[in-house]
Amino acid sequence: MEKLWENKIRKIEPYVPGEQSKEKDIVKINANENPYPPSPKAIEAIKNFSAEKLRFYPDANAYPLKKALADYYNVEAENIFLGNGSDDVIALCFQTFFCSEKPIAFPDITYSFYPVWCRLFNIPYKTYKLDEKFRIIPEDYREENGGVILPNPNAPTSIGEGLDFVRKLLEYNQDSIVIIDEAYVDFGGTSCTELTKEYKNLVVTGTFSKSRSLASLRIGFAIADKELISYLEAVKNSYNSYTVDSLSIAAGVASIEDEKYFNETINKVLKTRKRVVDELEALGFEVLPSSSNFIMATHKDYDMKELFEYLKTKKVFIRYFSLPRIDKYVRVTIGTDEEMNTFLNEVKEFMK
Amino acid sequence: MEKLWENKIRKIEPYVPGEQSKEKDIVKINANENPYPPSPKAIEAIKNFSAEKLRFYPDANAYPLKKALADYYNVEAENIFLGNGSDDVIALCFQTFFCSEKPIAFPDITYSFYPVWCRLFNIPYKTYKLDEKFRIIPEDYREENGGVILPNPNAPTSIGEGLDFVRKLLEYNQDSIVIIDEAYVDFGGTSCTELTKEYKNLVVTGTFSKSRSLASLRIGFAIADKELISYLEAVKNSYNSYTVDSLSIAAGVASIEDEKYFNETINKVLKTRKRVVDELEALGFEVLPSSSNFIMATHKDYDMKELFEYLKTKKVFIRYFSLPRIDKYVRVTIGTDEEMNTFLNEVKEFMK
Repeated sequence: MEKLWENKIRKIEPYVPGEQSKEKDIVKINANENPYPPSPKAIEAIKNFSAEKLRFYPDANAYPLKKALADYYNVEAENIFLGNGSDDVIALCFQTFFCSEKPIAFPDITYSFYPVWCRLFNIPYKTYKLDEKFRIIPEDYREENGGVILPNPNAPTSIGEGLDFVRKLLEYNQDSIVIIDEAYVDFGGTSCTELTKEYKNLVVTGTFSKSRSLASLRIGFAIADKELISYLEAVKNSYNSYTVDSLSIAAGVASIEDEKYFNETINKVLKTRKRVVDELEALGFEVLPSSSNFIMATHKDYDMKELFEYLKTKKVFIRYFSLPRIDKYVRVTIGTDEEMNTFLNEVKEFMK
Repeated sequence: MEKLWENKIRKIEPYVPGEQSKEKDIVKINANENPYPPSPKAIEAIKNFSAEKLRFYPDANAYPLKKALADYYNVEAENIFLGNGSDDVIALCFQTFFCSEKPIAFPDITYSFYPVWCRLFNIPYKTYKLDEKFRIIPEDYREENGGVILPNPNAPTSIGEGLDFVRKLLEYNQDSIVIIDEAYVDFGGTSCTELTKEYKNLVVTGTFSKSRSLASLRIGFAIADKELISYLEAVKNSYNSYTVDSLSIAAGVASIEDEKYFNETINKVLKTRKRVVDELEALGFEVLPSSSNFIMATHKDYDMKELFEYLKTKKVFIRYFSLPRIDKYVRVTIGTDEEMNTFLNEVKEFMK
């Protein structure tokens, strides 16, 4: 029997999230998660959360967390937008800021969700090739467009660009909204949040999932001029008023307030990253210059897909992309020193 | 200076969430929250959540919670969809299931977010008047449409309908998706989840925010045939893969497993509701027959807006809607016995 209601349904190809092994005793360095737990103060905020208050809706405006972020980034609470992870924040940005008929612009090698959102929201897009060293060419983005989005540092290349680069993008794009996705910026990148005061068309997004070790709690944010934030809030409040839950607000505030722990954790990751890069280079690997908590590495004498598959059999999970141009690389998240020792030992075994 | 990027932005009227007082020592019976805390087991699940696991992304499929709900509703995990509160679930349903050119159908007096989502997603809609007793007339929904959505029990009327009513809707709408929003069903309504086995075009939505006292944690769900759930998952996974956070999954599972506490809490609310209705009727109020954790009440001799304003000055917060046909009513959430005594005493004071 024909089902006529089928014609009223939107059928899209499912986007499949990255593989997450359920196995125990694995080295999980495939999702760019932080190897260290969140601030003990964030953990305490969760444990001490009033059981009596769980029955209430969260503060729809998540004001305490906006205030904490505003103080941290030296802006006002009205310059901050919050969402259920930075994917939620960016998806709402696409719906709010990319509403012309012109194609939006982003790099050919970048966060894989951008074209997915374009398809979901029927936004035309055009990609621009990274150069042979996997750098973004800012001059490409002089072409007329419906908006610009790119991660800085870029993913999965790990390469970060400086403020001059972002300024160039903004100068070339005075008639579009420019979104800089700073998911990885805390690991040695250069944040452009201060430029939101100068450029009214700049939106900077961030997340608590990487540098703040709170991927489980889904906290993402955007920083921009108040006018842009107000448009974003209007769309968000027409979709779901209560996206950030009460425990996330409490844990997020505590995390921001514990700057000492935050800096210590970041420094540990950066120190480990340096050592891993040095050791891989000593083994003949070529590693892209990373400003992130992960690295992209290749070896002229070995097949990286084979390395990826080999490591999987050893319960070391890294990431391999079967995509043009980057299929000769593997992406490796920086874990603890112990995890990276296991990784390096297994790489040496593989090379034997 | 003209800002050309303004033309690329979507500017919509902000939807303003209901007023939430920050004052202490108030009687907050305006948001249909549960007056009792969640199951002690849910609270324990939060406190005992492994700090070490907070750094990981949640299970994108939230499988443990799907399994718990499936067991509870006697369906399979593949029949369950989860989201960040039922607003997120329903917004995704609108995007997935209401994709024809025909107007979708819902009552003129109902959940105020339905027309907001229609405007956001450019979905045409047509509303059908409740009868003079605020009942939904199922025959109205025989008209050709792009889909049907209604809450059962309806909000803010509090009135619930039986399985025969839902069957009628489904018989009249074999060519559309029919969504029954059961946010309040646990408070004495009739759930139609079992009909999802019989009708492949039925979607039932629910929430942990009311009967399970977990509004703070944002857990909503849908139950439907596997095919419909798969379309919903594809859209969700093109938007944000990780909508339900790890603590919500853990607390949600514990809540479902504690059926004894759940039943006790519901029974307390129902007992209080009966007493409040009896007392209001003794004072000359007319109260609509409620199958929800709130009531709609009016009094022929008093202005309900004045009652609402008066109670506010006494720190008793109820809800009043300045809308045609229901502007002679107030909506009152059923709180604890103590809260309702304060409410009733203040009502008597007002009537003096």
